[in-house]
Amino acid sequence: MRDAYLIGAGQSAYGAFPEESYRSLFRTAFEAAAESVPDGFETDDVDEAFVGTLGVGGRQLGLSGPAVTEHVGLDGVPCTRVENACAASGFALRSAVQAVRSGMADVALAGGFEVMSDASSDVTKYWLGVSGETEWERLSGTTFAGVYAQMAAAHMAAHGTTREQLSRVAVKNHENAASNPHAQLDFPCSLEDAQSAPVVADPLTLYHCCPTSDGAAVALVASEDVVATYAADPIRIAGVGAASDDVGLFQRETYAGIPASRRAGEAAYEAAGIGPDDLDFAEVHDCFAIAELLAYEDLGFCERGEAGALIESGRTDRDGDLPVNTSGGLKAKGHPIGATGAGQAVEAFKQLTGAAGDRQLDDPVRGLTHNVGGSGGAAVVHVFERESEVGA
Amino acid sequence: MRDAYLIGAGQSAYGAFPEESYRSLFRTAFEAAAESVPDGFETDDVDEAFVGTLGVGGRQLGLSGPAVTEHVGLDGVPCTRVENACAASGFALRSAVQAVRSGMADVALAGGFEVMSDASSDVTKYWLGVSGETEWERLSGTTFAGVYAQMAAAHMAAHGTTREQLSRVAVKNHENAASNPHAQLDFPCSLEDAQSAPVVADPLTLYHCCPTSDGAAVALVASEDVVATYAADPIRIAGVGAASDDVGLFQRETYAGIPASRRAGEAAYEAAGIGPDDLDFAEVHDCFAIAELLAYEDLGFCERGEAGALIESGRTDRDGDLPVNTSGGLKAKGHPIGATGAGQAVEAFKQLTGAAGDRQLDDPVRGLTHNVGGSGGAAVVHVFERESEVGA
Repeated sequence: MRDAYLIGAGQSAYGAFPEESYRSLFRTAFEAAAESVPDGFETDDVDEAFVGTLGVGGRQLGLSGPAVTEHVGLDGVPCTRVENACAASGFALRSAVQAVRSGMADVALAGGFEVMSDASSDVTKYWLGVSGETEWERLSGTTFAGVYAQMAAAHMAAHGTTREQLSRVAVKNHENAASNPHAQLDFPCSLEDAQSAPVVADPLTLYHCCPTSDGAAVALVASEDVVATYAADPIRIAGVGAASDDVGLFQRETYAGIPASRRAGEAAYEAAGIGPDDLDFAEVHDCFAIAELLAYEDLGFCERGEAGALIESGRTDRDGDLPVNTSGGLKAKGHPIGATGAGQAVEAFKQLTGAAGDRQLDDPVRGLTHNVGGSGGAAVVHVFERESEVGA
Repeated sequence: MRDAYLIGAGQSAYGAFPEESYRSLFRTAFEAAAESVPDGFETDDVDEAFVGTLGVGGRQLGLSGPAVTEHVGLDGVPCTRVENACAASGFALRSAVQAVRSGMADVALAGGFEVMSDASSDVTKYWLGVSGETEWERLSGTTFAGVYAQMAAAHMAAHGTTREQLSRVAVKNHENAASNPHAQLDFPCSLEDAQSAPVVADPLTLYHCCPTSDGAAVALVASEDVVATYAADPIRIAGVGAASDDVGLFQRETYAGIPASRRAGEAAYEAAGIGPDDLDFAEVHDCFAIAELLAYEDLGFCERGEAGALIESGRTDRDGDLPVNTSGGLKAKGHPIGATGAGQAVEAFKQLTGAAGDRQLDDPVRGLTHNVGGSGGAAVVHVFERESEVGA
């Protein structure tokens, strides 16, 4: 099995951009990714592409992958659209790694996009429920905030987690987003702001919920045979793990955790030969504040039930020993569904190449990204590391 | 790079099944695929799954891959939904091959499904245009039959192809479908029937168009390291090729051929080290009769402009030297969009293992499948061969 490397990654800003199209956003992300490659990348180098989007709205409905890759000059290159709800481009990245490791591609693109702010499309009709289970969740009126609210209530009941602890996730991630020029909610949020905001789905308030976002992101993956062409200090994709589960929350073994995240994390750690203590930072899937706390436990950052204490300890702040969501996370950077997984790889790339600007960590060597589909019907985890610092 | 093998494949019947769900159809296909594996297959053997569906209707909208794999007992197994319009499960098969060749899976599932007969869903609103380009084709009222009618008209103008030659595709494929118990249109169609049927989109008549279908299909792929466990006379996936192109027909270099098919075919032949003369049969993408004629030329079965003469010659009949669409093809077996690519692999598996019943060819050694997304925005080709007959 050949090793795969992250040689570049870039994204558009996340926000509401009525003057942009899904194609123009993708082009912005592709150009940013291409420019981020240290040495000699040409568009023609791409052998294969995987593009994630949920895309149920009034835009391109079928073949939406080729529809964007043709727009950036990748005519003829095989392109596969991947959809695993909010984990679409996390799984696109997994497929790009497989394409490279298989020997069928030397350079593969993993990207994603979503346009959610266009209220004229069917997006508005379906969006918040589309990634839930259809018969028993979506068609019974359960929104996505409602699903995660049930998970929050279950975690509170089982472990004494408090609404203030949820609010601390929002405070931390807004503070990080304020240093990210691509973030949608790039302003601070106080504990009082988060606590006193209107309730969306009890116990979740407005500041416990991610925004509705337009945006795109692209990651570029290369094989060990060609990586030296592109980077002198390459970032190895050391571990990949993924899992699926029942799509409906009501079918799962627990509401107070995401079993697919746990399995995906364990698989990624095993593949990388590391554990959570070996990480310098992580980007986790915080579509709602409770989701970040569940991720702490599912990914082994703390014991089960201890996530509330972990956020309170400050260890996951930007100056803590395991900074989480330095980008601002889905919560404050934004969550254009199909772009999110690739966008997490953008933050990992920036942190590992010293390109994270005002939010740059002190010389990190290894980071993790964690992307969840729906309420946990799918999850995918990647571990990235600077090979020069850890050995091959 | 490890070799990948087709160890089993099965499908539901194709047709209109209001009493079935997308999940029950997928279960039928999975069970048929599992039973087709010669030796010792267990559900737990599956390491990874890729499921193709277009699925824009009122059924499960996000995470529709995990929604079916959980239903057949593959809980926890990573599952990625793939969508490339009508080539969804052809690309799912490609991804399964990459997963196996990458070393990340020993056994991978590639499947697909579609439920199109349910007129209560949004499917009916979008379906026939959903795989076309949105701004200039779908929203301007161009149906999918209309797109292929333009291709037929262009081929007639450039090469003198006749409507009778189109009708001969329908006659051949209906005759084949009459021997396929899974076929939707399992009845003969005379040349007079096809010629005199109502015009759907000039020059295409009703019998030049595939039906609207429900159905599912599953193929199982194994690595060279484990294949001996499952089959003593294994079928190697000798070549895989794929390409993308502009999604809109009006953007392409020609209307009288599908450039993505040509590129995908060339890549697959090169990977397999063969040419079209080495094939014993082929399943090609005949969503409309003209599509089969274009495939003859794009895949090198004849020279450009000679497809009309080739169908007239009888060489692609079941008793010809290169039988095409022994299953009945999309035209008469049916075309449940997401299932079609995997369903083509089912026919290849049946022919190569002597399980094709009344339509069995005489000891074929090597066959090809060809799956097109939309009007040619994507195409994927696989070459399958009995390793015992050709050497490794």
